[in-house]
Amino acid sequence: MPDWGAGEHSAASILKQMLNRPPRREGVDRVFHALADPNRRVIVERLSRGPASVSELARPLPMSLPAVVQHLHVLEASGLVRSEKIGRVRTCRVEPAALRPVEQWISARRSSWERRLERLGEYLAESNAEPPKEGTG
Amino acid sequence: MPDWGAGEHSAASILKQMLNRPPRREGVDRVFHALADPNRRVIVERLSRGPASVSELARPLPMSLPAVVQHLHVLEASGLVRSEKIGRVRTCRVEPAALRPVEQWISARRSSWERRLERLGEYLAESNAEPPKEGTG
Repeated sequence: MPDWGAGEHSAASILKQMLNRPPRREGVDRVFHALADPNRRVIVERLSRGPASVSELARPLPMSLPAVVQHLHVLEASGLVRSEKIGRVRTCRVEPAALRPVEQWISARRSSWERRLERLGEYLAESNAEPPKEGTG
Repeated sequence: MPDWGAGEHSAASILKQMLNRPPRREGVDRVFHALADPNRRVIVERLSRGPASVSELARPLPMSLPAVVQHLHVLEASGLVRSEKIGRVRTCRVEPAALRPVEQWISARRSSWERRLERLGEYLAESNAEPPKEGTG
């Protein structure tokens, strides 16, 4: 968890981080949840073109800076975005690898559907095929 | 909206449906939101293998039938699942096309990242290339 403000390294916050440590499955939940908000997708779209400071990210968004920071918290918790504070400027970057579990889940569904269609196609082909002739051997 | 219970066709519910009518963007929000819950993903995984009744879907889930119906509401609102009630049995099916906008969004991000890496590669190749020799013409 980055140093977004004071008190991030207190015992309470460390305990909170430990309790919040996401198992693999929860990670997928978090990525889907993070991407369910259009403003968070705008942030990811912007960061896909290159790193940006928090104020650059906030500029096109119709909300206060604290609201943008809240969205960035959600994106960082999902692993999609990471950030680094140098001096007074926090620079955010996208973490393309974090999308992988979500891509895998979607592509597993797609191949499951395609297998079903294939089986249906085979079934229809068999139903339409001429019955085997007798006495040709 | 399917006939999940009584009162679905009242003026208030029709107005609510009209106000809730999703623009394209909100559709993507709903699909991401629907998939952010592990139990809803279990339902979609099950339906990817073929249609199922509500009680079949409920069987492996650690929750009450009304809770499952709530999850199905969210999945139907997202367009990922559709259902049909024949007699007393509601049969649910998956709607693979509903995943397309989400797949497109993810693949657009991926190509954006790949373009960036490509440009970086070109830049590094140019930096490493020997400077052009003079007086060879």
